[in-house]
Amino acid sequence: MDFLQKKIINHGTVINDHVLKVDTFLNHGIDPELMKEIGKEFASRYQHEKVTKILTLESSGIAPSLMTALALDCELVFARKRKSLTMVDSLLTSSVHSYTKNQTNDISVSKDLLNSQDRILIIDDFLANGQAAMGLIDLVQQAGAEVAGIGIVIEKSFQPGRKLLEEKGFRIDSLARISSLSNGKVHFLQEEPIVQK
Amino acid sequence: MDFLQKKIINHGTVINDHVLKVDTFLNHGIDPELMKEIGKEFASRYQHEKVTKILTLESSGIAPSLMTALALDCELVFARKRKSLTMVDSLLTSSVHSYTKNQTNDISVSKDLLNSQDRILIIDDFLANGQAAMGLIDLVQQAGAEVAGIGIVIEKSFQPGRKLLEEKGFRIDSLARISSLSNGKVHFLQEEPIVQK
Repeated sequence: MDFLQKKIINHGTVINDHVLKVDTFLNHGIDPELMKEIGKEFASRYQHEKVTKILTLESSGIAPSLMTALALDCELVFARKRKSLTMVDSLLTSSVHSYTKNQTNDISVSKDLLNSQDRILIIDDFLANGQAAMGLIDLVQQAGAEVAGIGIVIEKSFQPGRKLLEEKGFRIDSLARISSLSNGKVHFLQEEPIVQK
Repeated sequence: MDFLQKKIINHGTVINDHVLKVDTFLNHGIDPELMKEIGKEFASRYQHEKVTKILTLESSGIAPSLMTALALDCELVFARKRKSLTMVDSLLTSSVHSYTKNQTNDISVSKDLLNSQDRILIIDDFLANGQAAMGLIDLVQQAGAEVAGIGIVIEKSFQPGRKLLEEKGFRIDSLARISSLSNGKVHFLQEEPIVQK
């Protein structure tokens, strides 16, 4: 995903050691062609995984998820942070703690939209502490469905989210992995070098 | 947009005389192929309108807007209902009153994402009282940009939104126009019959 790394370097802004602003192309302004590429990439990684639905969280997860759902020819559901007027059905609800905001909020999905036959690809824009992903996993498991994997656009690899999810045995596909935001710069995680013998 | 009318009839649920639930395909569960058709339709109507950006409101406006932006090859921005951690820039803000919830909330967009050269297509999932659309128009006008038109997926034509916007001179393109939800049924507005002479 060189194009994503390039976009982050050219258009992302490091706010501090923990916060990367990507609001010109991912979570406020959206670059449609980038979303299409992201969708293709997730789809190619999960094309043999019999995914029936993508589950994401409003709002920033919706665009990459929609392009992935189109490429995988599957359905899409977004969990809500606030209950809407028409959510009159039974709901599955989970609590998500935000360390940055230091508050815990419920996320919900209608019981009618997930079922025990589903094999779900969870997609989100960021992976940091893993709390949002854990909440989405909880919703999938409450429905008796299976998690095929977790697709992340940008992983802050210096935060504990990936470790938490890996320890629970989940597959994680992060398209960009950031090792550090120190000194106002984005550093990507280097892949293991291939040792020539 | 026969396919949209069909989808509404087959998969929508009339909750009461004012509320139509479409959360299996539009604003909770999302039908990706339907979004693609909606995007194509808006794009065909605005292809000669020199649209530079689409502006929508999180969360339900994002999916139809993304497909329209792809089809028109333009950018996409969604206004936020809550300020995010990385919204450190100057913001344009407007107030939107919800009659159903009887509360007024701010919507915001970063000043950096709209500019006076922009010609904006506003897209939203529903048009009822027109308050959300008026808030989005206000953001566009604060930026000194121009409104090319307002694209609506489902218009509740028995509520005053369209009249309000038309009186202000805006072009409105609603893909499905509902004249009534009475007796638990969806009635679509009939087009003016063509008089054979």
